[in-house]
Amino acid sequence: MKRVALILAGGKGTRLWPLSREKFPKFFLKFEKDKSLIQESFLRLKGFFDVKDIFIASGGEYRYLIKQEIERLGFKYPLENILPEPVSRNTCSAITLGAFYFKNRFKDAIMSVFPADHIIKPYSVFHKALEKANSCALRDFLVTLGIKPDYPATGYGYIKAKVARLKAKNKKAKVASPPDRRAGLKAKKYYEVERFIEKPDIKKAKRFLKEGGYYWNAGIFVFKVSKILSEIEKFMPEIYNKFQKWNGKDFTYLEKIYTDLPDISIDYAVMEKSKDIALVPFSGIWSDVGCFEEFYKILKKDKSGNVISGRVLNIDSKNSFLLSDEERQLVTLGVNNLVVINTKDATLVMKNGEGQKVKKVFEILKNDIVTKEHKLVIKPWGWYKVLEDKPGYKVKILGVNPGERLSLQKHKYRDENWIVIKGEAIVTLDKKNIRLKEGESVNIPRGVLHRVYNPDRKRILEILELSRGEVIIEEDIIRLEDKYER
Amino acid sequence: MKRVALILAGGKGTRLWPLSREKFPKFFLKFEKDKSLIQESFLRLKGFFDVKDIFIASGGEYRYLIKQEIERLGFKYPLENILPEPVSRNTCSAITLGAFYFKNRFKDAIMSVFPADHIIKPYSVFHKALEKANSCALRDFLVTLGIKPDYPATGYGYIKAKVARLKAKNKKAKVASPPDRRAGLKAKKYYEVERFIEKPDIKKAKRFLKEGGYYWNAGIFVFKVSKILSEIEKFMPEIYNKFQKWNGKDFTYLEKIYTDLPDISIDYAVMEKSKDIALVPFSGIWSDVGCFEEFYKILKKDKSGNVISGRVLNIDSKNSFLLSDEERQLVTLGVNNLVVINTKDATLVMKNGEGQKVKKVFEILKNDIVTKEHKLVIKPWGWYKVLEDKPGYKVKILGVNPGERLSLQKHKYRDENWIVIKGEAIVTLDKKNIRLKEGESVNIPRGVLHRVYNPDRKRILEILELSRGEVIIEEDIIRLEDKYER
Repeated sequence: MKRVALILAGGKGTRLWPLSREKFPKFFLKFEKDKSLIQESFLRLKGFFDVKDIFIASGGEYRYLIKQEIERLGFKYPLENILPEPVSRNTCSAITLGAFYFKNRFKDAIMSVFPADHIIKPYSVFHKALEKANSCALRDFLVTLGIKPDYPATGYGYIKAKVARLKAKNKKAKVASPPDRRAGLKAKKYYEVERFIEKPDIKKAKRFLKEGGYYWNAGIFVFKVSKILSEIEKFMPEIYNKFQKWNGKDFTYLEKIYTDLPDISIDYAVMEKSKDIALVPFSGIWSDVGCFEEFYKILKKDKSGNVISGRVLNIDSKNSFLLSDEERQLVTLGVNNLVVINTKDATLVMKNGEGQKVKKVFEILKNDIVTKEHKLVIKPWGWYKVLEDKPGYKVKILGVNPGERLSLQKHKYRDENWIVIKGEAIVTLDKKNIRLKEGESVNIPRGVLHRVYNPDRKRILEILELSRGEVIIEEDIIRLEDKYER
Repeated sequence: MKRVALILAGGKGTRLWPLSREKFPKFFLKFEKDKSLIQESFLRLKGFFDVKDIFIASGGEYRYLIKQEIERLGFKYPLENILPEPVSRNTCSAITLGAFYFKNRFKDAIMSVFPADHIIKPYSVFHKALEKANSCALRDFLVTLGIKPDYPATGYGYIKAKVARLKAKNKKAKVASPPDRRAGLKAKKYYEVERFIEKPDIKKAKRFLKEGGYYWNAGIFVFKVSKILSEIEKFMPEIYNKFQKWNGKDFTYLEKIYTDLPDISIDYAVMEKSKDIALVPFSGIWSDVGCFEEFYKILKKDKSGNVISGRVLNIDSKNSFLLSDEERQLVTLGVNNLVVINTKDATLVMKNGEGQKVKKVFEILKNDIVTKEHKLVIKPWGWYKVLEDKPGYKVKILGVNPGERLSLQKHKYRDENWIVIKGEAIVTLDKKNIRLKEGESVNIPRGVLHRVYNPDRKRILEILELSRGEVIIEEDIIRLEDKYER
């Protein structure tokens, strides 16, 4: 049966603020070797699936950015493989969306579901587990990958496999209890699941580790499209029924139904209720890098136990995670067991171990620009960077990628000036095209239609933009034409 | 006899980086109630001296800034009261400069010398001590103010008064040993000095506090101009002789001699050698706020022992000094006993107690812009702020104060664009004057003479400046006319 992958690029990663932002979710964060987490996730699957069979479900606003991010790995990736979710509605909706899409396109298939922002190593061990999970799914199980715990984590949910109970009751009876329909598959390759367990306290977690048979729930699932759909129909008809009329092609239709979908995870909605759950163990390295402590744990430390990255001058500190943007100087002096994250506009200083509270920061500052986006904002056409944002005016630099153009737009409440810093620009101003060289500028009064195009095939075009007006917000853009369908 | 004050606005305050910078010395730092340390110093003396009798010795580049800073307190302050030092050459040279200046202008006077960057309270107690010191100086003593220590500080030098020895030898003989020439002054108002002592270790400092009769050396001195000059002639002829030919008016003459003057403090050069030293005790609040720990000590703490100022979100931290620029968000989570100083371009995170090492940071980063100046640079005509500094270009905002103008200048290696953000500008461009309104811009190719003037009497003029070129440095300014004699 055909095998397809569905990467869920959903969660914001609020516990990784100020690296992650409302509009710059965790999966865009760079990890080792300058690869973002979503690039990592993609590379990890590329050895197991055909590129064209890897699909990504994500917020529509990220579609072009994700495509670019994947193609930066060096190959073509079709835009239609990125399934746009109108709003974020948790994993049950996203998986239903994927399953209906696959059903429409492939009739049936074995679909594997992966979060976009985890770290899993080594690839070979992971692929072996996937292979087992696919075989098992073929026999109409909902298969979950269980991560063999190596420490009593309190930040993860656990899954108890049936083998554990056997083991606990009778130490000699170390026999797996495979699902009934295993039909010739070897024992111990997968287990029946006894139950799903919420994040435990440290006492429980220690017991789990000691008893054995408990696995971390990594949110990685493998099942037949037909099987998961029948289970969703059974346990979550309110989701299933809304999708039933969808033809699997018309994504504007989804905009009508999506907001009303319940915000529920596939774990709660289906996995914990279904009788046909199997677990395939994975004993490689896995981390959800959900908080800075997890990040620190997985990175290589220096002799003093520090992870140091970026423009940092450290004197006499130890056991610390010190990260700084290149545009800012971080100096640390004699600190211990600290996490310091220094970005262009915000700095987090916390004691190692307080990582769960970062979520709180995100909530307290939720109306502040520092939780919404970075100073440098990646756009489908390039990027912009906010240099100054004061009452009455705003200064930005726009970086337009070779051959790219912004939307044809106008503003109601602001006048703009553009000066070309680098490269050459073709500026459309009220139907007229003007060619601007470095140092040349143009005045754009409010209400006047304008757009900029970088005609060069190689060089980036950089423009200094001054906006003046009482209200200067991103929302004050009236778009008439847009290459990126915004 | 006439009484004059000389404020020495010299030291950089390298241990207060990143608040202080090479070109933004400690005395400009804001303290409580938004007053800078030099403003505080001035206000403290205003009740004792006539404003016209308060003089300030400082680097020539700070003359206009200091005048502005003083006048922000609400009165006129003559520019000629700020004595420009061509380069920084420690306190002996600065005091000799002041003494010769006073000799020339007033023949003789009692001069009191104060650092520009200390905290002293309350004023009334301080003025009483000054009064005593002036009486004593009239009798040809070199008087030093001794601060009664209230804890065993290791960061200050000590002065041992003679009374201390008496006290130690014979506990009953708690009698002051006033200078011979006291002539009717009451005992205990001042003491003879036994010796000056370098910063001690904690053991010694504790002993000093226990024994009594030891005072902190605050660098505050009172003496007759004639007396200090005769002592400098005796102990530091290499400085005295160089100044002897100076007429006390021609400051360009000083430029010739100043670089060759020895870099020596008045303590080493004279006070420790002279036989005619007296000490007047001061038992009010005093701090040299020389490092962040001193700063923290003197500021008001909240219930958790924190001093928090600026844009800080703190959750569960204690005993910490947390300071942030309004343009950046600082978040602290569960930290203890920490100092975090978050400025526009640099962040210092240090364990409370490591404050002496900040000087090291200043040395290590001495070629870096972050130790040289702030992003916001105060100028005699207003200010400029660096928004972006990249290879090939630089973006700034210039704020021109009402009625002010920049120098008539040109650049060899850069082209500039100016756009008016706020206010109205009169731009001189190659002998032509152009009036620019908000949103209007001008192109300034390299080599073309230009200047900007703010004709408004009330509003500040703000200009967005883009510089483009291979080399963009402040040094590339050829000035033809300058209101501020640069």
